[in-house]
Amino acid sequence: MKLLRHGPEGAEKPGLLAADGSIRDLSGVVPDIAGDVLTDAGLARLRGLDPAALPVVAQGTRLGACVAGTTKFICIGLNYADHAAESGMDVPPEPVIFMKANSAICGPTDPIVIPRGSEKTDWEVELAVIIGKRAKYVTEDEAMDHVAGFAVTNDVSERAFQTERSGQWTKGKSCDYFGQIGPWLVTRDEVADPQNLAMWLKVNGETMQDGSTRTMVYGVRHLVSYLSQFMTLHPGDIISTGTPPGVGLGQKPPRYLKAGDVVELGIEGLGQQRQDVIAD
Amino acid sequence: MKLLRHGPEGAEKPGLLAADGSIRDLSGVVPDIAGDVLTDAGLARLRGLDPAALPVVAQGTRLGACVAGTTKFICIGLNYADHAAESGMDVPPEPVIFMKANSAICGPTDPIVIPRGSEKTDWEVELAVIIGKRAKYVTEDEAMDHVAGFAVTNDVSERAFQTERSGQWTKGKSCDYFGQIGPWLVTRDEVADPQNLAMWLKVNGETMQDGSTRTMVYGVRHLVSYLSQFMTLHPGDIISTGTPPGVGLGQKPPRYLKAGDVVELGIEGLGQQRQDVIAD
Repeated sequence: MKLLRHGPEGAEKPGLLAADGSIRDLSGVVPDIAGDVLTDAGLARLRGLDPAALPVVAQGTRLGACVAGTTKFICIGLNYADHAAESGMDVPPEPVIFMKANSAICGPTDPIVIPRGSEKTDWEVELAVIIGKRAKYVTEDEAMDHVAGFAVTNDVSERAFQTERSGQWTKGKSCDYFGQIGPWLVTRDEVADPQNLAMWLKVNGETMQDGSTRTMVYGVRHLVSYLSQFMTLHPGDIISTGTPPGVGLGQKPPRYLKAGDVVELGIEGLGQQRQDVIAD
Repeated sequence: MKLLRHGPEGAEKPGLLAADGSIRDLSGVVPDIAGDVLTDAGLARLRGLDPAALPVVAQGTRLGACVAGTTKFICIGLNYADHAAESGMDVPPEPVIFMKANSAICGPTDPIVIPRGSEKTDWEVELAVIIGKRAKYVTEDEAMDHVAGFAVTNDVSERAFQTERSGQWTKGKSCDYFGQIGPWLVTRDEVADPQNLAMWLKVNGETMQDGSTRTMVYGVRHLVSYLSQFMTLHPGDIISTGTPPGVGLGQKPPRYLKAGDVVELGIEGLGQQRQDVIAD
C-alpha cells in the first residue's frame, strides 16, 4: 500500500495511491495516517478496502508529508562510507544520531526555503523509516515488526549553520521546509529489501547523487534496534537513515542551492519528489 | 497564573493552582494546556475565571508535564559560564542548541529512569521557557510577546551516551523520563525578571546546584529571537535554557545517579520537583 496525505498545508487528509494511479481519499475511514493506523492491524484494515469504492482526489492536489503524529524526526549522520569521506569525516564506530525539528516536516513538492542569512543550503536524498509500533529495547530480529513502511526524504541542510555556528548539527537541519517526506509511505510488505534500493537526486536536471541503500553502513534493522536502546520509538516517528555521496558540500568546489534551482529526488519503489528553491 | 496538568500518564487533564494552594480542574473550560490556550487571548480567558468555582482535584493526584502539544524540546548548551568551565568547555560565541526527544517529557515527580547500560546519568536544573505564540524572525524586543511563561525542568543527561558514543549530544539527552517539566507553567506576568531567579538542586538532601539565572550567558529574550532565526517556534514548544554549575560531571571525582537516590530541584517562584531514581 502507498499511503499519503493530501490537501492544503496544515489541513491534510489521509489517502492512498490506487493501482490505477489515482489518489483516493481515506478521510471517511481513518482520521489521519498516524498512530494506530500505522500498526499491523491498522494497515490490515486499510488493505481490506476496495480503492475503487473510495472518493477520487482531484489531480494536482498538493500532497503533504505522508505521515502525521510524528513525535521525533531522528536522523543518522555519516551512514554511507563514501559520504563520510566526501565530508572529510570518518565512519563512526556506532551510529551518529541527531534530531530535526518536527516543524521542518513538509510535503514532497513543497519548496526548499533558503533561510535568511544562509549561503550553504544543501540537499540529501535519504531513505526514511516510519515506525508503526512502539519500540523499546527491541532486538535486530524484532526490529522490522515495528516498522510501518518507508518513504523518500530530503534532509535539507545548511552547512554553515550545521558546523560553523557553535556546534551540534540540529541548528543546520531544523529550518522550516528542510524535511520533505513522501510522496507516500510504502508499507514494508511492498519493499522486498530496504538495503538494496537505488536512490538519486538531481539539481536543475543534473544528477548529483546516484547511490543505493546497499552501501549504508548501519542498516534499518540495526538502526531501529539501536535507537530503541536509548528512547522509545512511537508510531509516526521518522528515522532518516543518512545520505549517499554527492551532496553540495562534497563538490569541488562546494556547490549550494540558490533561489530558482529545482531539486528532484527519488528512491526505487518509493516515488519521487520535486522542489523549487526559494529565498525566505 | 500557575497552569498544570493532572492525572495519570498519557491521560492528563488541564488545571491550575489556586491561591489557596488547591488544584482546580480546567477540563470543562479548555481541552489542554496547549496550542491557542497559551496565547495572550487564551491566557486572558483563563484569568477571568473564578478558581473557587472550578472542581477541586484530589490531593496527591499526579502532575504531568505542565504543557502539552510540544513539537520541539530545544535545549541550550553551556549557557552558564561556570558550568562550561566545570565541563571543560569554552563559553560558545553563540548559543549551542540541541534537541531532546519529545518522548522524554514527563511530570515533575515522575522517576528518573536510568537506562540500561548507563553508568553516567546526571542532573541539570534549568529554567524552561514555554512558547505561547508562533515566532519566526522575531527581534529581542519582540521576543517576550511570544512567551507564555516559565517552568522548572530537569534536563537529565547520560554523559557517556552524550559525548562518548559517536558524537551529537541528543543521544544522551533523549532517554525516556529525562525531561521532567513543571510542576506548573507560571505565566510571564508573574515573573518580574526571568534573569534573576535563584535555582537549586539536591541529591539525597545534599545541595549540588545553587545558582541563579543571573549568570546565564544568553538570556531568554536573546534565545527566543536567536532560535526564531533558524526555525518557527510554535505554542507549547519548550526552550530549556541551560544549567548552572554543580552537575555530577563537574564533581571531583564525577558523581552520577544510582537507583534509590532522590533528586529535588526548584526555581524561585516556579515551584519544585522531586524524583526517585530507578533502574530500567
